[in-house]
Amino acid sequence: MISTGSKITIVGLGLLGGSYAKGLHDAGYTVYGIDIDPKAIDYAIAMNWIKDGSEDPSLCEGSDIIISALYPRTFISWVKDNQKYFKPGSILTDVTGIKRETVKELAEILRPDVEYIACHPMAGREQKGIRFSDPELFRKANFIIVPTEKNTERAIQTAEDLAEILHFRKVSKLSPEEHDEVIGFVSQLCHVIAVALMNVGDNPRLVDYTGDSFRDLTRIADINEDLWPELFICNKDYLVAEIDKLVDKLKDYQEWIDTENVEEMKKAMIEAAGRRRLFGRSSK
Amino acid sequence: MISTGSKITIVGLGLLGGSYAKGLHDAGYTVYGIDIDPKAIDYAIAMNWIKDGSEDPSLCEGSDIIISALYPRTFISWVKDNQKYFKPGSILTDVTGIKRETVKELAEILRPDVEYIACHPMAGREQKGIRFSDPELFRKANFIIVPTEKNTERAIQTAEDLAEILHFRKVSKLSPEEHDEVIGFVSQLCHVIAVALMNVGDNPRLVDYTGDSFRDLTRIADINEDLWPELFICNKDYLVAEIDKLVDKLKDYQEWIDTENVEEMKKAMIEAAGRRRLFGRSSK
Repeated sequence: MISTGSKITIVGLGLLGGSYAKGLHDAGYTVYGIDIDPKAIDYAIAMNWIKDGSEDPSLCEGSDIIISALYPRTFISWVKDNQKYFKPGSILTDVTGIKRETVKELAEILRPDVEYIACHPMAGREQKGIRFSDPELFRKANFIIVPTEKNTERAIQTAEDLAEILHFRKVSKLSPEEHDEVIGFVSQLCHVIAVALMNVGDNPRLVDYTGDSFRDLTRIADINEDLWPELFICNKDYLVAEIDKLVDKLKDYQEWIDTENVEEMKKAMIEAAGRRRLFGRSSK
Repeated sequence: MISTGSKITIVGLGLLGGSYAKGLHDAGYTVYGIDIDPKAIDYAIAMNWIKDGSEDPSLCEGSDIIISALYPRTFISWVKDNQKYFKPGSILTDVTGIKRETVKELAEILRPDVEYIACHPMAGREQKGIRFSDPELFRKANFIIVPTEKNTERAIQTAEDLAEILHFRKVSKLSPEEHDEVIGFVSQLCHVIAVALMNVGDNPRLVDYTGDSFRDLTRIADINEDLWPELFICNKDYLVAEIDKLVDKLKDYQEWIDTENVEEMKKAMIEAAGRRRLFGRSSK
């Protein structure tokens, strides 16, 4: 288990970075925070989640573990600019929602005496910012570790420890390619659907006519428009293919409806319902 | 308000019919139930939700209000076969999710001394059958009344009374065409998306990699395959058009992603998020 004497620095005190800070603090670790927004730092200090915080990246000096909670491309450029402060032998990890790009870029630029272990905590909420941080988010969330053949057991264990300390429900390991493919489907495609649905409907009185189904399908349409275009573009090959597959299936249903082909619809619905039951009744 | 001395008969003791029965019983009304399944009747009697029940449609004789909780086409044929038992001056209402067809068919076949007022309680859950009935479902649900120019104030008031007695959150009125168009979008299209998404993904380990977004978008994929093809087909003109509109919008996002057009994506996401906020944060 990660030693409680470790210095852990979180870079980016937003929703996820703040939730990590509180979760690690609650578990007895000493946490430091770096953010360009002094208000986020003041908040984390006031909440006692971090021992110290700064806009100055040199605060990460001497850290045993650095956790980036930045957007993917900001993460890469931040490392480029500030790895001079990293401690030899330290471990770098992250929370970004795409992995081929971060793994590839960091393999090229990261100092050889620092090890990057890619992680994706599959937690979030509609709101952004540290004021909505809450490590309780993690208890029902999956955690994906994305090791490469270059990763040591020590780094992988550190990632597993983090998931355990933060009480994630389930830890899985995927390759960068597997990760990005599966995320293109279960997360990114769902976000595309949700925003597309809201873009289609322009009746402000819709709220009076909706049931739970529409609310559920569009919850994530209250989206962070700074983050998601970047995530989509970093994964565009898989995501473009997933949209094609969904459109094909929607067209199947459209044809079955138009030709009143009840049998095909029933068959497909029985398949869909059976698969969905594996996930349990509710999302809550 | 509907007189507590009224005889109310519910035809079809499934999830919704059972919830109506319990809700009306709890409010002090005397309820009777008709169903082809003797187990559903036994259950409703055992729970004390109905005073009496039968497989025999003649039980509805003397009813002031008859509420059909049957599937749309079964509803029409049941009325055809059994309206001989209806009491002159009585009111017939329903719960079906499409309205142009029921309104048109009943205008042709219903006895002139009985009045049909079309209603759509927008409540449901993934499970079917009376054992999952619960009028608490209605407290957060919208209720749509679909009057035509032939409806009297008395019948419309009866529908409003039912919504009030059962504690629906909000009551709206729409024409049959407006109803079917809006339902094609907010309910039927969402169900098509949910099942199509489950049909696309065939990885049984997906459950280990999902966040809330996928769970939310597919909750309703655990669908009743007997009911929904019928609802889709009864509304196929609107639904086919809604699928086209969604596919066009998905293709827009696909192109923006592929060409890395961040500006268009941001613009569309800001629009989507703004519209979504009108619905409140959560579906719960």
